[in-house]
Amino acid sequence: MTSTTHVVRAATIPAPKQPVEVREYPRPELEDGAALFRTLLSEVCGTDLHLQQGLLTETPYPLIPGHANVGVIEEVRGDVRDVGGTPLRGGERVSFLDVHATCGACWFCLVAKATTRCPNRKVYGITYGADDGLLGGWSEYVYLKPGVRIVRIPDGLSPETVIGGGCGLPTALHAVERSDILLAETVLVQGTGPVGLSCIAFARLRGAYKILAIGAPKRRLDAARRMGADLCLDVETSTVEDRREAVMAATAGRGVDTAIEASGNPAAVPEGLDLVRDNGTYTVVGQYTDHGPVQINPHLHINKKHLDIRGVWGIDYSHFHRGILLQERYNAQFHWEQLITHTFTLDQANDALEAVRSGQAIKAVIRPGASG
Amino acid sequence: MTSTTHVVRAATIPAPKQPVEVREYPRPELEDGAALFRTLLSEVCGTDLHLQQGLLTETPYPLIPGHANVGVIEEVRGDVRDVGGTPLRGGERVSFLDVHATCGACWFCLVAKATTRCPNRKVYGITYGADDGLLGGWSEYVYLKPGVRIVRIPDGLSPETVIGGGCGLPTALHAVERSDILLAETVLVQGTGPVGLSCIAFARLRGAYKILAIGAPKRRLDAARRMGADLCLDVETSTVEDRREAVMAATAGRGVDTAIEASGNPAAVPEGLDLVRDNGTYTVVGQYTDHGPVQINPHLHINKKHLDIRGVWGIDYSHFHRGILLQERYNAQFHWEQLITHTFTLDQANDALEAVRSGQAIKAVIRPGASG
Amino acid sequence: MTSTTHVVRAATIPAPKQPVEVREYPRPELEDGAALFRTLLSEVCGTDLHLQQGLLTETPYPLIPGHANVGVIEEVRGDVRDVGGTPLRGGERVSFLDVHATCGACWFCLVAKATTRCPNRKVYGITYGADDGLLGGWSEYVYLKPGVRIVRIPDGLSPETVIGGGCGLPTALHAVERSDILLAETVLVQGTGPVGLSCIAFARLRGAYKILAIGAPKRRLDAARRMGADLCLDVETSTVEDRREAVMAATAGRGVDTAIEASGNPAAVPEGLDLVRDNGTYTVVGQYTDHGPVQINPHLHINKKHLDIRGVWGIDYSHFHRGILLQERYNAQFHWEQLITHTFTLDQANDALEAVRSGQAIKAVIRPGASG
Amino acid sequence: MTSTTHVVRAATIPAPKQPVEVREYPRPELEDGAALFRTLLSEVCGTDLHLQQGLLTETPYPLIPGHANVGVIEEVRGDVRDVGGTPLRGGERVSFLDVHATCGACWFCLVAKATTRCPNRKVYGITYGADDGLLGGWSEYVYLKPGVRIVRIPDGLSPETVIGGGCGLPTALHAVERSDILLAETVLVQGTGPVGLSCIAFARLRGAYKILAIGAPKRRLDAARRMGADLCLDVETSTVEDRREAVMAATAGRGVDTAIEASGNPAAVPEGLDLVRDNGTYTVVGQYTDHGPVQINPHLHINKKHLDIRGVWGIDYSHFHRGILLQERYNAQFHWEQLITHTFTLDQANDALEAVRSGQAIKAVIRPGASG
Repeated sequence: MTSTTHVVRAATIPAPKQPVEVREYPRPELEDGAALFRTLLSEVCGTDLHLQQGLLTETPYPLIPGHANVGVIEEVRGDVRDVGGTPLRGGERVSFLDVHATCGACWFCLVAKATTRCPNRKVYGITYGADDGLLGGWSEYVYLKPGVRIVRIPDGLSPETVIGGGCGLPTALHAVERSDILLAETVLVQGTGPVGLSCIAFARLRGAYKILAIGAPKRRLDAARRMGADLCLDVETSTVEDRREAVMAATAGRGVDTAIEASGNPAAVPEGLDLVRDNGTYTVVGQYTDHGPVQINPHLHINKKHLDIRGVWGIDYSHFHRGILLQERYNAQFHWEQLITHTFTLDQANDALEAVRSGQAIKAVIRPGASG
Repeated sequence: MTSTTHVVRAATIPAPKQPVEVREYPRPELEDGAALFRTLLSEVCGTDLHLQQGLLTETPYPLIPGHANVGVIEEVRGDVRDVGGTPLRGGERVSFLDVHATCGACWFCLVAKATTRCPNRKVYGITYGADDGLLGGWSEYVYLKPGVRIVRIPDGLSPETVIGGGCGLPTALHAVERSDILLAETVLVQGTGPVGLSCIAFARLRGAYKILAIGAPKRRLDAARRMGADLCLDVETSTVEDRREAVMAATAGRGVDTAIEASGNPAAVPEGLDLVRDNGTYTVVGQYTDHGPVQINPHLHINKKHLDIRGVWGIDYSHFHRGILLQERYNAQFHWEQLITHTFTLDQANDALEAVRSGQAIKAVIRPGASG
Repeated sequence: MTSTTHVVRAATIPAPKQPVEVREYPRPELEDGAALFRTLLSEVCGTDLHLQQGLLTETPYPLIPGHANVGVIEEVRGDVRDVGGTPLRGGERVSFLDVHATCGACWFCLVAKATTRCPNRKVYGITYGADDGLLGGWSEYVYLKPGVRIVRIPDGLSPETVIGGGCGLPTALHAVERSDILLAETVLVQGTGPVGLSCIAFARLRGAYKILAIGAPKRRLDAARRMGADLCLDVETSTVEDRREAVMAATAGRGVDTAIEASGNPAAVPEGLDLVRDNGTYTVVGQYTDHGPVQINPHLHINKKHLDIRGVWGIDYSHFHRGILLQERYNAQFHWEQLITHTFTLDQANDALEAVRSGQAIKAVIRPGASG
Repeated sequence: MTSTTHVVRAATIPAPKQPVEVREYPRPELEDGAALFRTLLSEVCGTDLHLQQGLLTETPYPLIPGHANVGVIEEVRGDVRDVGGTPLRGGERVSFLDVHATCGACWFCLVAKATTRCPNRKVYGITYGADDGLLGGWSEYVYLKPGVRIVRIPDGLSPETVIGGGCGLPTALHAVERSDILLAETVLVQGTGPVGLSCIAFARLRGAYKILAIGAPKRRLDAARRMGADLCLDVETSTVEDRREAVMAATAGRGVDTAIEASGNPAAVPEGLDLVRDNGTYTVVGQYTDHGPVQINPHLHINKKHLDIRGVWGIDYSHFHRGILLQERYNAQFHWEQLITHTFTLDQANDALEAVRSGQAIKAVIRPGASG
């Protein structure tokens, strides 16, 4: 594949609830400060499934999914640098932050310093549509607009490791950091999907004493153990009461110091609130889609517990940047690449979504350069 | 009243749902390290009403209520000192922390440092009953056990000012401090009872820009304005949507930076969650009694909002100590004594409870030394 | 003064140690996103004196000083908005943040989130020189480049009040916020210049119990009392030991909970370290110029004291924005405009510097529109 | 050794600068709530050397050193429990917190919550002398007064592992926690004695990216590598400038995110301040003895750097408790027992001090039950 390529193939969701189809797009001209990225691997995430199912609001169909990507710089126009100020060159292996155009000029960016709530931010593969350009990773090439944050992949870190972590890894890093886990705390992670699994890894990296995990199916619980969980509870074969007994038995009857919700199931929230000890911390990072309300008891769950509850929305560049550093330093301990259970070509994108939907996959990826 | 007194009169709740009656108790002998306190003023709090109604669990009836008190040291046995190490002498005006026997030896005290959740702590007027001694303030005298934390009332601070703040003041201090209000933030306080009113004062003392309050009736909203609220919304004459519109209008459509729930109504919780801005802070301090569950939306209220929710249970000595300092320094600005709307004798204790129950009183007090 | 003006007069430092002279510059053409600001008032700050004396490194002479300014929008080119997204119009009274071009793209901005240490930031009147344009406030007009952060002056807030706070006000806000003062703490402020005086005001707005100040001369100590200091110690008529005795007498022999160094004198640092209590906080905000080393004792001052020491460099937009809100809400309490003791025309700029150098002025200002 | 023992042998420092001698003491009678502890291993710490050299103030000679100890409960009188409330029984393997009598009643304990600065605390082996009882671990038996905090040694954790961590381990835990290391930060530890080595381990447990260490001699640097240091700089064979170059080369010229001083050398402080990046954190935990002042530059080292400097004095029970949990969970990674390089009998106590003084030992221990 060389710079003579003029047509770019990209898996595209034409409209809500429509099957993905591979479309051809012209190879883009680069504006000043932009770069062209040749995709090696792109993640298939639960959000991609929600996009295809039409569950998110204001999605700009047709859409090229793929917000976590590893590839190679194919071409650079003008001065494109990483945060260290080093210019990027063609041929370098990189990843880039899907979140783009955090404005740095609005009240949320400048006064609240809540940049993940900046109303101007755009996300590759989610809020940028195909009409905006080649802005999703299920494509042979991705157009990196000026200002897209690019990081080099360190030597010795494979594309599979980076995408094995995927978008869930920096999200988990954000959640674990918001949880402010102290050395020797006991931590519960609810959910053993990609976010939950990296939460387990990072709870271990924060020096937790004991890590409990609630999830399913068995394949994911096995992965949870590999990531550092000491005790895994299968949510499909246990009751709420079973799990409560197990957690209390493991914590001298007090509940865990910190629990992190990474399941996406609203019912996990009151269950988790019950499982945290008084004056503990409960972090909610799994509720990325609106699945409706749940009942909680303000007296028992918040006031009398003297609890801290912390929501976690999105990531910023620091999570992305440090996530790569942590993979570089600690992948020998966690082997994120082993979370990849399924690999697909662009032409198999619908199979990829099905692997995610069915729960068969821990992590499915698309390899756009592979022939279908 | 001198040391020749041999009989002590105290208003006593004989059993759940029974009227308060004045009983006579023998004047106690002091053990080493104890003191006898002659009550000048004792607060009548919503919790006292709940005690009389039998709403709290494990209440040791018969019970002498009264957990916020101002009085005079009548007698001291042995070495009794304040936290500064100065011995206390007969005749000094003092108040004391109702929370007693925080053990300093359990997992919650020593490892979690969550002393307000110490399972061994006892509370004068609430979890100590009349069979345990003269351990509530609706009594001519209170027995201060060894280890009770006593503070001198500074010159220039009247008993009425201290009890006008009452137990709600250090609770509010705890809540405002947990809220970690930044200079120039906009703060909403839900509830205009004694806790809410002191929350307003302390939000002002933390340099809030704008303070909004939701409450009722008019007398309390007037007090809210005096304590520093810029905008008061009457919960009895407005709808949830009215209030939402008013709060959004006052905050450029974003919601407040910090909201503090001090109402005791579970429905206030989802309403408050709607009124805080993204990445704001929501503190729950009003849910001291279990009034059942409410519905919240984990996606909208926690995860996507990137919210901090913080429960606040009880107080420790630092809140009590610093509350007195703040009254000394700032009462000229807030006039806590003006929150006292009703004063009763021991024999009128049932009238006192009715004044609280009906919402007529902002703060009712009992003056045990007054003749009935 | 109308849009037909073609020549702009600006007081200019031609070279280090040279007197300021008024030069004439052409009225600039606006690029897209820029605005022209007609200066009403510009501050004369200690830093301006250091610029004239040649004490700062890498200063781009010739230089138009003036980094804290209030004026009127004279002209706007294209889309210029405040952080709330409201377009700015000609005729509006505004101020602007002197710090410009914080890049939002470097390691310090994105990973460390230490934006005041961004190596790309430029400061109007300090690191932008006259060759870069009309980029200092000692000028009839200032060129507001695209991206300059502009705030409207609220109705009821005079230009004198805003400049009476000046650059020291947001710096003090930053310092007080870094100090994390708790309600009822005792606070010491070392230095009674503009930064120190606003530190006193903000310590009061954070609900300090007692505020002590060390400074001179009498005029500034009088101002310190007006800003909220309870006890003022004259640094010119007392010894280190005198001051130590006075601080210990005011704090039960423990030292203050928080001390803030705002004096610029290196010797203040070991003195302040001695005056903070064990486990207190010491914030250093006054050492903006290198006046050489001092001796401290790591055992006594840091380790055994279990101290927190916090340096404060510069401000970001949030301090500037919230500073204006605090002036709007609380100026009736503090009267920042009363800190202005001297007003000069452009032609009197050398007299203005002398008023600052001699310590005669608390705050001197230049009114570029006044005739000389 | 049975309960019929009537004489207890203990190594005792008779007076400053006198050799240690073994003295015999009567076996103590237990008061209610006390326990008798049979010492298996007692640490020899740098502080013990300072005690023998007479460098600490107010030392109560004659003194039985030994403040970090592992042993067996020989006898219990009355109700003695651990923090979980479980009664302790004879024959159990335990350790105990040397810090005793933190009062829980003074201003530092109750208002400042700075319990390590409680003026009433006493320390076994340091501030309790032989005249106070068998209150140091260089003794066949130690008298555990009522209120001494005792922890069971978990199965699978050897006495050697616990004492290999020794008093430096909870001190390091405190320092690392005060440093608030973020995931993926680069950390520098100055000093490779027992505190520094555990700081390295805990920085690793907090998920540091890169850990640098400065120390000597080679044996300790080898240990530093085993504890997780990525780069070790020999302080004896390098200059300050050499080390600065090495640190800057490892940190893209910025300096480390966090540095922890654990060397005891005052000169390490200005060196460390130079090696931390702007807006980083510098923690001082090694300056336990007064070795005089050093020069720092307030402008460059604090103000312009926007630095956080944090002193760390002593430990509380939580550090001790969690230290044991961390050893239980992570000793397979760190092997604290390998830090023990020298073991002595009571009769060899002077040799033990010499091994520490000469720097030959990483960690020396005394085994009181061994025959000399």
